[in-house]
Amino acid sequence: MSFTPLIRQLIDALRILPGVGQKTAQRMALQLLERDRSGGLRLAEALRQAMEGVGYCRQCRTLSEDEICPQCSDPRRDDSLLCVVQSPLDVFAVDQTGFRGRYFVLKGHLSPLDGLGPEAIGVPELLERIAQGGFNEVILATNPTVEGEATAHYIAQLLLPKGLVVSRIAHGVPLGGELELVDGGTLAHALAGRKPLTL
Amino acid sequence: MSFTPLIRQLIDALRILPGVGQKTAQRMALQLLERDRSGGLRLAEALRQAMEGVGYCRQCRTLSEDEICPQCSDPRRDDSLLCVVQSPLDVFAVDQTGFRGRYFVLKGHLSPLDGLGPEAIGVPELLERIAQGGFNEVILATNPTVEGEATAHYIAQLLLPKGLVVSRIAHGVPLGGELELVDGGTLAHALAGRKPLTL
Repeated sequence: MSFTPLIRQLIDALRILPGVGQKTAQRMALQLLERDRSGGLRLAEALRQAMEGVGYCRQCRTLSEDEICPQCSDPRRDDSLLCVVQSPLDVFAVDQTGFRGRYFVLKGHLSPLDGLGPEAIGVPELLERIAQGGFNEVILATNPTVEGEATAHYIAQLLLPKGLVVSRIAHGVPLGGELELVDGGTLAHALAGRKPLTL
Repeated sequence: MSFTPLIRQLIDALRILPGVGQKTAQRMALQLLERDRSGGLRLAEALRQAMEGVGYCRQCRTLSEDEICPQCSDPRRDDSLLCVVQSPLDVFAVDQTGFRGRYFVLKGHLSPLDGLGPEAIGVPELLERIAQGGFNEVILATNPTVEGEATAHYIAQLLLPKGLVVSRIAHGVPLGGELELVDGGTLAHALAGRKPLTL
């Protein structure tokens, strides 16, 4: 048996979602068809509206349907702090911690082998944004991967001559878990970055 | 930070998919927005078409946008064999094995505690279908769970007096894996259902 064309088309379309293979897509399609048609229609409409309506914030380049996103337009935020991240999800993650400065979202990380140089990831726009705003400190919060580190290093070299404070998020052992399970590189960073305790 | 309304609406809508929680929905939404807007629009359209266009086959009650599904309208299938299953996905699973008889899809299994009696799962329609067709054998392929067994047993009691051959799919050890990992109930079934080997 093959499914009928409409069902097959739905299963194929669901497979573009990250982490969804053939079996999962089948289960999703049939569950929606059998149990939740109104939910399926709601999802279709939400997808259409978001795909057509969401653009990028003109200032921080995160995803937003407004020209200026809520973070950039919020007057209560600290205008002296800029946090540079790799993706809109990172803005969400950093904001969850209570950080209340401004953001700039790069388009991923430098990757010369894939032809992604500074222009491709938006470094010129970052420099422009920094030139406009009166930031005292730029926090580089790219991913703690080789590419993320390289990207942070590259941007730091551009910013340091301008007399800005440029910082990188700390590396060390994550909270919870056990020391023996932490990888060597992380543990080396945690030792090198040790802090004196005081009374 | 909260996401902008359109993105939040999309994340909420994605959570109706089975197995998709908040984090996965966020990742799906942002991946579609950042990497594959045309795929997202295709998915929206496929969802809309399927939710509005797919109904149930008049004969076997599987999901189908045609009045009669491809399995029921295929003239090359064996009209003497009827396989009774619990869901449209089971039709797909059984058909993958090379079975080429006809199907009937129940709406789940009997569940008196949830108020699901024979009428709710479509037993009257099954009897009607059997009265129409010239089946020699009815294979009960409900799930090998307590409820599936009870459903099969109930239907068998209705059909046996009609002089039909009524069969139940075999229980036993699944292919692959090791005997020591098989649960006791299954192994007991496998022993009881042992078959003599011949030269």
